[in-house]
Amino acid sequence: MALAGASGYAGGEILRLLLGHPRYAAGELTIGALTAGGNAGTQLGDHHPNLLPLSDRVLEETTPEVLAGHDVVFLALPHGASGPIADALPPATLVIDCGADFRLADADEWEHYYGGRHAGTWPYGLPEIPGNRDVLAGASRIAVPGCYPTVSILSLLPALAAGVVEPHVGVVGVSGTSGAGRSPKVDLLASEVMGSARAYGVGGVHRHTPEISQALSAAAGNEVSVSFTPVLAPMSRGILATCTARTTASGEEIRAVYEKAYADEHFIHLLPVGKLPATSSVLGSNAVQLAVTVDERAHTMVAVGAMDNLTKGTGGAAVQSMNLALGWDEAEGLTTVGVAP
Amino acid sequence: MALAGASGYAGGEILRLLLGHPRYAAGELTIGALTAGGNAGTQLGDHHPNLLPLSDRVLEETTPEVLAGHDVVFLALPHGASGPIADALPPATLVIDCGADFRLADADEWEHYYGGRHAGTWPYGLPEIPGNRDVLAGASRIAVPGCYPTVSILSLLPALAAGVVEPHVGVVGVSGTSGAGRSPKVDLLASEVMGSARAYGVGGVHRHTPEISQALSAAAGNEVSVSFTPVLAPMSRGILATCTARTTASGEEIRAVYEKAYADEHFIHLLPVGKLPATSSVLGSNAVQLAVTVDERAHTMVAVGAMDNLTKGTGGAAVQSMNLALGWDEAEGLTTVGVAP
Amino acid sequence: MALAGASGYAGGEILRLLLGHPRYAAGELTIGALTAGGNAGTQLGDHHPNLLPLSDRVLEETTPEVLAGHDVVFLALPHGASGPIADALPPATLVIDCGADFRLADADEWEHYYGGRHAGTWPYGLPEIPGNRDVLAGASRIAVPGCYPTVSILSLLPALAAGVVEPHVGVVGVSGTSGAGRSPKVDLLASEVMGSARAYGVGGVHRHTPEISQALSAAAGNEVSVSFTPVLAPMSRGILATCTARTTASGEEIRAVYEKAYADEHFIHLLPVGKLPATSSVLGSNAVQLAVTVDERAHTMVAVGAMDNLTKGTGGAAVQSMNLALGWDEAEGLTTVGVAP
Amino acid sequence: MALAGASGYAGGEILRLLLGHPRYAAGELTIGALTAGGNAGTQLGDHHPNLLPLSDRVLEETTPEVLAGHDVVFLALPHGASGPIADALPPATLVIDCGADFRLADADEWEHYYGGRHAGTWPYGLPEIPGNRDVLAGASRIAVPGCYPTVSILSLLPALAAGVVEPHVGVVGVSGTSGAGRSPKVDLLASEVMGSARAYGVGGVHRHTPEISQALSAAAGNEVSVSFTPVLAPMSRGILATCTARTTASGEEIRAVYEKAYADEHFIHLLPVGKLPATSSVLGSNAVQLAVTVDERAHTMVAVGAMDNLTKGTGGAAVQSMNLALGWDEAEGLTTVGVAP
Repeated sequence: MALAGASGYAGGEILRLLLGHPRYAAGELTIGALTAGGNAGTQLGDHHPNLLPLSDRVLEETTPEVLAGHDVVFLALPHGASGPIADALPPATLVIDCGADFRLADADEWEHYYGGRHAGTWPYGLPEIPGNRDVLAGASRIAVPGCYPTVSILSLLPALAAGVVEPHVGVVGVSGTSGAGRSPKVDLLASEVMGSARAYGVGGVHRHTPEISQALSAAAGNEVSVSFTPVLAPMSRGILATCTARTTASGEEIRAVYEKAYADEHFIHLLPVGKLPATSSVLGSNAVQLAVTVDERAHTMVAVGAMDNLTKGTGGAAVQSMNLALGWDEAEGLTTVGVAP
Repeated sequence: MALAGASGYAGGEILRLLLGHPRYAAGELTIGALTAGGNAGTQLGDHHPNLLPLSDRVLEETTPEVLAGHDVVFLALPHGASGPIADALPPATLVIDCGADFRLADADEWEHYYGGRHAGTWPYGLPEIPGNRDVLAGASRIAVPGCYPTVSILSLLPALAAGVVEPHVGVVGVSGTSGAGRSPKVDLLASEVMGSARAYGVGGVHRHTPEISQALSAAAGNEVSVSFTPVLAPMSRGILATCTARTTASGEEIRAVYEKAYADEHFIHLLPVGKLPATSSVLGSNAVQLAVTVDERAHTMVAVGAMDNLTKGTGGAAVQSMNLALGWDEAEGLTTVGVAP
Repeated sequence: MALAGASGYAGGEILRLLLGHPRYAAGELTIGALTAGGNAGTQLGDHHPNLLPLSDRVLEETTPEVLAGHDVVFLALPHGASGPIADALPPATLVIDCGADFRLADADEWEHYYGGRHAGTWPYGLPEIPGNRDVLAGASRIAVPGCYPTVSILSLLPALAAGVVEPHVGVVGVSGTSGAGRSPKVDLLASEVMGSARAYGVGGVHRHTPEISQALSAAAGNEVSVSFTPVLAPMSRGILATCTARTTASGEEIRAVYEKAYADEHFIHLLPVGKLPATSSVLGSNAVQLAVTVDERAHTMVAVGAMDNLTKGTGGAAVQSMNLALGWDEAEGLTTVGVAP
Repeated sequence: MALAGASGYAGGEILRLLLGHPRYAAGELTIGALTAGGNAGTQLGDHHPNLLPLSDRVLEETTPEVLAGHDVVFLALPHGASGPIADALPPATLVIDCGADFRLADADEWEHYYGGRHAGTWPYGLPEIPGNRDVLAGASRIAVPGCYPTVSILSLLPALAAGVVEPHVGVVGVSGTSGAGRSPKVDLLASEVMGSARAYGVGGVHRHTPEISQALSAAAGNEVSVSFTPVLAPMSRGILATCTARTTASGEEIRAVYEKAYADEHFIHLLPVGKLPATSSVLGSNAVQLAVTVDERAHTMVAVGAMDNLTKGTGGAAVQSMNLALGWDEAEGLTTVGVAP
């Protein structure tokens, strides 16, 4: 495989997972070209000192030529950069894009939220959406979902698909900072972030909003409006999504819906009644931990999901998608065991 | 003044603020008996090494006799403990209770959420609720609001009072750990909390829910249902409350409502359009920073408030209430300047 | 295998690593009895929600009877508790003790630092000490080193063994909180720890001091005095040890000593000149990252080592020791890849 | 007063303290020109949303003309920038420089560590050095010490001045990130810093090394060699300095030396025997908390000091120096009360 964008957090997470993939140990999966933009020419160890076995690998310039000749290409690039690269790669190459370029079906929505021209729509790398595994098996182009959308969709989809909540949902996603990437910005400095929670992208303007709405509307069979507020918390990894929707159903009814929906999902763990998720429980793991309850006074379903934004939220989803596309066991190289405390 | 519960976080915050109160420097306000339960007999410096000027003060046993004889008595005790103490203090003593005992008007609600017998209802120490200052001026018994209620009420009240949002509100409050108090519990250990966000009290069961509803319903003139979800974030201080309610009003209309409501409030700072609050901006300060906007796609008002749970959320509110009750300037000894970064 | 002390952090880490051990996947290594003291009767998921595959396992009471009948027994118990348990287990059982009971050779030292009676001395589970692998291969009793000693010894041993520094060393170990265990104590609460660094056990009184001295003295062939100061930092995992010793050697000479000493060590990574270690780089990994330099003005060698206190510092060392004792590849189930950021 | 460099952390801290200064409340101290480099033209609230009363102040370009006409000018500029500005200000203006430009007496040392030309030497704004208050009273140019030097010097000076330790000292300073300033750099991103401790500037290369040595050598009356290692910890504020020196004295002897040295120092608090400092205890305060003990086995004095790097370490020292220079009470506007937890 090759990886474009190896010096960023998403790229590093993909490499971390591939280094632990049994097919890598077996020699069936090799780590080929690693590329970067401004960091081309530096060593991987300059950026990811945690990836010891690859420390000395030199990053090449991101070009289609460098990436071509690999069976699998991961793209972990800024939004808007994947389209031209993908166009230049052979159709048979499995291209897995961690950016937003190919996630939205509606070109107007894409242009409204991202600017520039819509590049197209690829199969959406969230296998836990009913029906998606069939699409992903054998696909040669896959769009990895955004991190907030993954946990929000998984937390809300069963209730909307079953029609047991109103199609107006609220999501407050509390996220660690790695989701904001590695470009140096004052407001992401440790001094600014530690000891502080702050909201950003308030009022429906965050780019993940239409992506959440798209998947939930498809599942519900009608338009689902989404009020999404992201909150930055002082931690590196993890998203805790508090998802609400008005309902007349009871807690038992709704829990039964979720139990049925996720009974066979390896990476989705519906917690026992009375337990609530914490992001520390899924650190470095591909699992989503989920609790669902009903506030019967406020006639509101509250579903809370915890996920590692870099693993199941990005790099793990990319590997899970690769496994499916190549016909391997979907869980290879991925774990449901988190690193805690 | 005297303070019962001096070894806890709320007690320590009250003392921190009183040490900086100009009336303390002027000798008009003296720090008398400091009491504790299990920590009686220890020194204040064992618990609050930050309060250097009082390090050597020995904590006495919390009894009405020790507290009597002071003009002002702060109670920072576990819920349910304030009632008997308060009963034994002279009616003319200004008693300011940081616990929940006297916050709720509805005895059934109190008993449902706290258990035990309702102790009564005292004037509610949130001066920014219209009309409350008149009640607090000269009061001899004051119930300091809960931390989540303070920021939630202040974030939502203007819109509900003006009738511009539906009376079903959602609040996701992201809080630091000091709000959970100082009793040693495994799930509050640093190892468990750092690097992790987790929900607790999900589904309308948190005790602050009826308190939020009570104040908002009074302001709205009709029952306001509240879906409240608290989230624990890895920081010591601060609450960021994301508050939502469906609306047909525009952002400008709603902003005008808030501008009018808070134009003269010293401690409430409506941020300029485009700015969003962070808890670090109010650390140690009595200010609430607030942003309000409308997601016009989701027909939802989003109001986000940031506050220091120990200052404006507890100890600052106690001092502000004391100032009002004694006829002093409400802001004495309190600041709108936070300690950042 | 069986594990005593499964509800604590060391026990949890051993289980996390075993769940990822290839012999576990292959069915050659099974996870048998999991025991606890006060937590007997609860489920593992109550304590380690990150260990999803074992969530439903019920913890049994820690007794020799429950542990007997397993080929391998890990003890992750409070200091002083391992001796009686180990005595009651068959001599052929591989017993790996994560406590301090069998680490020190000198009974007086043990009694001075730990109180109570010295239980004995077992092979020391730090394979990177020259000669230790031979002792550990086939051993049936192994004492896992303390966390501070592991990183301190590895950072200093080559220089002392080579005689290029004076036998008076200083170690300042900056540690995360998980090393202090999971018993709820006020000074380990998140509210106390976050945003704060504090020293503890200052002045040579920390129990790891004689353990560091024992290993370094053995390597140096003469008594090495150790000034050790532990510092608690606001992070869950990781130790960064700054180790100093006066020297007349140059940086190049000393670096050559370390390069030679660790050339073949899989888990010890001497960083390139100019790079310095960070604990985030080894989170969850069994690697130690090490930088060594000489301050030629102050005639002082400065060696800085970073390690995950729960992995290489405890659970990883236990698994590495097990692998060696059982004749497996020492690195099985362990990684040099950290989870970062 | 005027302040150059208002958008940085040091500048913000000076403003925070001045807003709480009693002379500001009394109208005797006014906050005049606030200037910046690249941030000129923006509002102070864009950078310091915690400084509510000054939110709307517009930052001017840093030029001597803008600064002239103020009785007091604080410079919080990058190293090397203060010299030319100071030269252009009238000799009678009180200029207080938070940079390193005027701290070192030895031009060679300055050029070795900072590059460029040595600008000169000003009175050193550490009043707790014996004799310094006389120099600072009435001074019109003051160099505020570096943050690490302040706590290191205060922790070690009494022992060296009394000749009870050897003149070779070790300092490991564990610091929060605000000391590294506000320029956006990848290695200061929250994602990189949180959950991690890392060393930097190892081997005597950190610029604060000669500054520590200069003050200690002057106090000792002979050259003191300093092995200084800075460590970055995941917190915004605070330095914990572990300072060691070999000694034949007993703990009681050394403690007596410190008690005598600091008996009358308002801002230096020698903790009771058995207590150890934490940086949280001094957050936002101008106090230094200090513990001193002797490890009699290792013949080593260990002195541990905790300080807020932005307050006593920068902004508080600047205000304390201003107070002294203007003949005001040295402690005005400064507190020994920290914001904790």
